[in-house]
Amino acid sequence: MENVVSEKRTYREKMNELILEKGGKNIKRFFALDSRVYEAGALTVKNKELMGLVASTVLRCNDCIFYHLDQCHKNDVTDDELFEALSIALIVGGSITIPHLRFAMDMWEKLKT
Amino acid sequence: MENVVSEKRTYREKMNELILEKGGKNIKRFFALDSRVYEAGALTVKNKELMGLVASTVLRCNDCIFYHLDQCHKNDVTDDELFEALSIALIVGGSITIPHLRFAMDMWEKLKT
Amino acid sequence: MENVVSEKRTYREKMNELILEKGGKNIKRFFALDSRVYEAGALTVKNKELMGLVASTVLRCNDCIFYHLDQCHKNDVTDDELFEALSIALIVGGSITIPHLRFAMDMWEKLKT
Amino acid sequence: MENVVSEKRTYREKMNELILEKGGKNIKRFFALDSRVYEAGALTVKNKELMGLVASTVLRCNDCIFYHLDQCHKNDVTDDELFEALSIALIVGGSITIPHLRFAMDMWEKLKT
Amino acid sequence: MENVVSEKRTYREKMNELILEKGGKNIKRFFALDSRVYEAGALTVKNKELMGLVASTVLRCNDCIFYHLDQCHKNDVTDDELFEALSIALIVGGSITIPHLRFAMDMWEKLKT
Amino acid sequence: MENVVSEKRTYREKMNELILEKGGKNIKRFFALDSRVYEAGALTVKNKELMGLVASTVLRCNDCIFYHLDQCHKNDVTDDELFEALSIALIVGGSITIPHLRFAMDMWEKLKT
Repeated sequence: MENVVSEKRTYREKMNELILEKGGKNIKRFFALDSRVYEAGALTVKNKELMGLVASTVLRCNDCIFYHLDQCHKNDVTDDELFEALSIALIVGGSITIPHLRFAMDMWEKLKT
Repeated sequence: MENVVSEKRTYREKMNELILEKGGKNIKRFFALDSRVYEAGALTVKNKELMGLVASTVLRCNDCIFYHLDQCHKNDVTDDELFEALSIALIVGGSITIPHLRFAMDMWEKLKT
Repeated sequence: MENVVSEKRTYREKMNELILEKGGKNIKRFFALDSRVYEAGALTVKNKELMGLVASTVLRCNDCIFYHLDQCHKNDVTDDELFEALSIALIVGGSITIPHLRFAMDMWEKLKT
Repeated sequence: MENVVSEKRTYREKMNELILEKGGKNIKRFFALDSRVYEAGALTVKNKELMGLVASTVLRCNDCIFYHLDQCHKNDVTDDELFEALSIALIVGGSITIPHLRFAMDMWEKLKT
Repeated sequence: MENVVSEKRTYREKMNELILEKGGKNIKRFFALDSRVYEAGALTVKNKELMGLVASTVLRCNDCIFYHLDQCHKNDVTDDELFEALSIALIVGGSITIPHLRFAMDMWEKLKT
Repeated sequence: MENVVSEKRTYREKMNELILEKGGKNIKRFFALDSRVYEAGALTVKNKELMGLVASTVLRCNDCIFYHLDQCHKNDVTDDELFEALSIALIVGGSITIPHLRFAMDMWEKLKT
C-alpha cells in the first residue's frame, strides 16, 4: 500500500531534478515561484494547500492532487476540512471530477496509515 | 480481457462506497443527483447516456468514458450510434480527444465480448 | 431583443466566409467535416444537435451554445428536452457552467419569440 | 462604475430565477447544493469563498470570479488575502489566467468603492 | 476599427500596472518570467509567438490570442504562417475553437490596416 | 526502457487501425486532416511539431505529448529547442502542466537512447 505513496514521491523528485538540471533558467525560476506561493502569509499554509488541492481537483490532475494531499496531511488537515474542500471542488467542477475524488479518497487513506 | 472491465467496475464501486460513507452530506446529494439526470424523461436513457459519453469525451476523462460506454452497452446502443456520437465529440473536441477514442474503441470491443 | 440573435448569426456568417476565403484548404476541410457530423444517420439531427449543445456547455463556449440552440430550435426541440440535456451538462460540468445556463436560457427565450 | 457591479448582480438574479422556474427539479437541486457547500463548517465561509475564487480563476470564468469576489468582499477578505489566493491561481493555472486577474483587479476595486 | 485594437492595448496595460503595483512579489515575478520565455534563443521570437498563439487558441482565451496576434504582427508573421499555425490549433482543439478563429481573423485584419 | 516507447507506438497504431476500420467516414476524414496540418508549408515540420507539442502540453495529454516528442525527435529537434518550447507551455499552462513536463522529460531521454 504505502508503496504507491513512496513510488509517487520518488518519481516526482527524480524527474524534477532532471528538469531542473536540463530544462534551463526559466523553468527553474518557475519551480522556485511554485514553492513560494504556498508559504505562510496572510493565509495559512493549510488553507493554501487546500486551495492548491481544490484547483488541482477542478483541473483534474491526479499527480497534483496527490502532491497537495501529501502537503495537507503533513499540515494536519482533518477529514472534515478535506471533504469540505473536496465538496467545493465537486460542485464547481461537476461529476467529471468524481474519478479524482475516488483517487483522492484512496490516497488519503494510504497517507493516513 | 474482461478483467479490465470488471476491475474498473469493482474499483469504482468500492471507492464510491467509501466516499459516500466518509465524504459528508453534500457529496452524497451530488451523487444522487448524478444518477437522476440520466433517468428516462423527455429524452430516452440511451440518448442521455450518449450525451454523457460525448461530454466525457470532449472533457477527456477515461473513467467517465468507460462508465457511459458500459451504460450504452446495457442500453443496446449500436456500433453506428456509438461512432456517430463519438464523431461529434471528435469534431467538437479535436485531435486531443483521439487517445480517448482509442480507449473507447478498446473498451467497447471488450464490453461486447 | 431579436437583434442579438440576428447580430450573432450575421457576425458568424461574415467571419466564416472570411476564414473560408483566406484560411487555406485544411480549415476549409475541417468546416465541411463540422457540418457532416450533425447530419441524420443512426442518430437523429435533433439528438445530434443536443449532443453538440451538451458538449458546448461543458466546454463553456457561448458562441457554440448559441449555434446549437439555434439548430435545436429549428429542429423543434421542446423545453423539456432542452432542459434535460442542459441538466446533464450541468451535472457533468458543475457550477462553472451556470453562467452558460443563464446565457442559454436568455437566448432560448429570444429564439422562441 | 458601480453600475457594472449592480448590472452583473441583477442579470444573474433575473436569469437564475428564470432557470429555477423553468429548468426542472434537477437543476433546482443543484442550485441548492451549490449554496450549501460554501456554508460555514470545519472551514470558514471566508476560506471557502477564496477556494471558490481560486477554482473559478483556474477554470477561467469571469462571472464566477465576480460572484466569489462579491462574496469575499462581503466576508471582509483583505487585499493581502485576496492576492495570495490569486497568486496560487496564477501559478497553478498559468499566464492564460492573467486576463482574469485583470478582470478580478478591476472588479475588486469597484466592489471596494 | 483601430479603436478596438488600441482599447484592448490600453486596458491591458492599465490593469497590468495595477496588478504589478498591488498584487505582491510573486505575481510580479511571474509577469517577468512571462516575458522572458518569448525572448529569442534556440527558437526565434516569431516562432515562439506563434507557439503562444497556438496555446492561447486551444485554451480558448481571446485576450491572449489578441496579445500574441499583436506580437506576431510586429514580428512580420505572414498570412500563410498565421493560418498554418491556426490550422494546427483548430485540428488539435476542435470546432470549439472556431469562435476564436473568427475573433483572430477579425483582429488580424484590424492589425494589418 | 525502450519498451515503453515501442509499446506506446504499437498500441497507438493498432487502435488507430481499428478506429479507421470501424469508426466511419467522418472519423477517417478527420484523421487524414490531422496528418496534413503538420506537413511542411510556410512553417517547417519541426516548428509545426513543436507547436503540436506546446498545444498538447497546455491541454495536458500525455499520449499526444509522446506522439509529438517522437516526431520532434525524428525531425532533429535539439534539447534547447525542446526546452524553450516546453518553457512556453509551462508559463502559459501553469504548474498543472508540471506532471506532463516530467513525463516529457522521461520520454525524451528514452527516445534519445
